[in-house]
Amino acid sequence: MTTNTHQTAPTQYVEANGTRFAYRRFGKAGDVPLVFNMHFMGTMDHWDPAVTDGFAKQREVILFNNAGVSSSSGDVPGSFAEMGANAIGFIKALGLKQVDVLGFSIGGLVAQEITLQARDLVRRLVLVDTGPRSGESMDTGTPEGKQIFGATYEHPDDLWLRVHFTPSEASQAAGRKFLKRFRLRTKDRDPDVTEKAALAQRTAIAKWGAKREHAWDYLKEIKQPTLVVNGSNDVIIYTISSYILQQNLPNAQLIIYPDSAHGSLYQYPELFVRHVSMFLNQEQWA
Amino acid sequence: MTTNTHQTAPTQYVEANGTRFAYRRFGKAGDVPLVFNMHFMGTMDHWDPAVTDGFAKQREVILFNNAGVSSSSGDVPGSFAEMGANAIGFIKALGLKQVDVLGFSIGGLVAQEITLQARDLVRRLVLVDTGPRSGESMDTGTPEGKQIFGATYEHPDDLWLRVHFTPSEASQAAGRKFLKRFRLRTKDRDPDVTEKAALAQRTAIAKWGAKREHAWDYLKEIKQPTLVVNGSNDVIIYTISSYILQQNLPNAQLIIYPDSAHGSLYQYPELFVRHVSMFLNQEQWA
Repeated sequence: MTTNTHQTAPTQYVEANGTRFAYRRFGKAGDVPLVFNMHFMGTMDHWDPAVTDGFAKQREVILFNNAGVSSSSGDVPGSFAEMGANAIGFIKALGLKQVDVLGFSIGGLVAQEITLQARDLVRRLVLVDTGPRSGESMDTGTPEGKQIFGATYEHPDDLWLRVHFTPSEASQAAGRKFLKRFRLRTKDRDPDVTEKAALAQRTAIAKWGAKREHAWDYLKEIKQPTLVVNGSNDVIIYTISSYILQQNLPNAQLIIYPDSAHGSLYQYPELFVRHVSMFLNQEQWA
Repeated sequence: MTTNTHQTAPTQYVEANGTRFAYRRFGKAGDVPLVFNMHFMGTMDHWDPAVTDGFAKQREVILFNNAGVSSSSGDVPGSFAEMGANAIGFIKALGLKQVDVLGFSIGGLVAQEITLQARDLVRRLVLVDTGPRSGESMDTGTPEGKQIFGATYEHPDDLWLRVHFTPSEASQAAGRKFLKRFRLRTKDRDPDVTEKAALAQRTAIAKWGAKREHAWDYLKEIKQPTLVVNGSNDVIIYTISSYILQQNLPNAQLIIYPDSAHGSLYQYPELFVRHVSMFLNQEQWA
C-alpha cells in the first residue's frame, strides 16, 4: 500500500539488460499492476494525473521511461521489437510475473510487441490511439501530423493542444484543462526527450509502418482480451487504424469517443478510467 | 413504481393516428423512459429479458409494436420515415415529453427517423447493430443475410442463432442461453409478424438502403448524444456501418464487442446494459 499519487510518487530506478530504467509506482497494491507505455517524445510526466490517479484508486500503476528515454539510461533502439524486449526486461526486473499493459500511441506499438514476445507476462492489453503494423500513413506520418509537429507554438506545451485535441471549442477547453493537470507536478520532473532519442523513435516508426504483405496477420497471435480506444478524429494515427486493430485481433473490444483526437484518454479521463476498469475487472471475456 | 418485469408486464394499448399500439411498460419510474424499437420481423417478445430487466432496475422501459406489427393494429408503411412518424404518435399518446430512444437493427432506422422528426422529444439515442441510409448492402440485404434468412431450421427460433451470433463455440453457447431467456415468457405472448408486414418492412429497407448522393449528410442533423453499438462480425448489417454512423454523427460514441454478430446486445447483455447506462447517466457529453 502506498499513499503516493501521480504528483508525489518518487522516481525510482531498476537495472535490466544494462539499462537503468526510471519508473514510478503507486496506487492500490493488488494482483496485477497496470504498466503504462508512453507516446512519441513523451516521458512519465506526459501522463494525465486524472487518468493515472483514477486507476490508482483501484490498482497499482507503473509508469516508466523505456531505454534511452528521458531519465532512463541507454539508447532508444531502432525498432519496436527491441523496445518491447527492453520493456519486458524492465517488467521482469521488478519481479512481476503478470501485468496488464496499456500503450498510448507509439506506446501501443511497444505494448503489442511486449504481448507478442512475452505472452505469459501479459494478462490484458489496452491500446489507445494507436495502430497496427503498416497502418495507413504510419511509416511517413500523416500529412496533418507533419504539419502539427512542424509548426511553432507560443508555449511549447501548446503543441499538445493540436496533437491531442480537435479544433472544436469543447475539445480545446478540455485540452487546456489537461495542460493544467499536466503541469501540476513541479518536483522531480523528467528531463525532455533528446533529439537523438526522438530521431531513433522516428526510425522505428518508419520500420513499423512500412508496407508489407499480410501486414495484419500477426494480430491473430495476440490472444489476450484487448480493449482498443481512440478519438473520433485522430489525425496522428488515423482513427480507422483502431477499427482495423479491433477487426483483426481475435478478442478485442473497441471504444471510440466523440469529437476527440489523438489524446482521447486526456479529453475524457474519468470515462476512460471507468471503461478501462470495467474491461480489466470483467471476470470473463467471451 | 411497478413490480412488473419483462415476463409479467401486461400488454397495454393506446390509440394514436388511428392505430391501436400494443406496448408494455415496466421498471423504475423516473424522468426519462427508454423506448425500444425492434428488428425486422420482431415483436416485443424478441427483446432479451436480461437486457430489458437489466435497464428496468434503473429506469422505465417501454416496449411497443409499431403500426402493423404483431399485436398492434394498422399496416406497416413502406418507409422508415412513416414508421418514425407512427412511433412519435405512439410516444406522444403516452403523454411523454422526453424519452431516450434505443433502436436495434431496423429499429435503429426508426430511431433515427424519430430523432430527425421530433428533435425535442429525444434526449439521447442508442443505435444497436444498425446503419445509415445507403449503408453497404442495406438495400438488397447482404449475401450472408439472404442465405441465413433463406435457410430452413429444425426449430424456427434457431434462425436467431445464425442471425444474432457468430459461428464460434462461445458465441453459439451465448446464443443458446439467449434462446432460453427469449422463451421464458409464456403468457400473453405476441403473435408472429405476418408475411404482409415483413414484406412491407423489406420494401422500406430497400428504400432506406438505396444509393443516393451525399447519403450520410442527414446524420449531421442528429445532434443528440448517441451511442452506437455493434458486434465485431455483423453480417446482417455490416459492422463497418456502425463505424460510419459514429464518424458522421456529430456527437456519437462507438462500442464494438469481440466475436459477436447482429445480436451483440444479446451476447453481452450485462455489459451492454452497463455501457448504455453509463452513457445515459453521464451528466455531460462533450
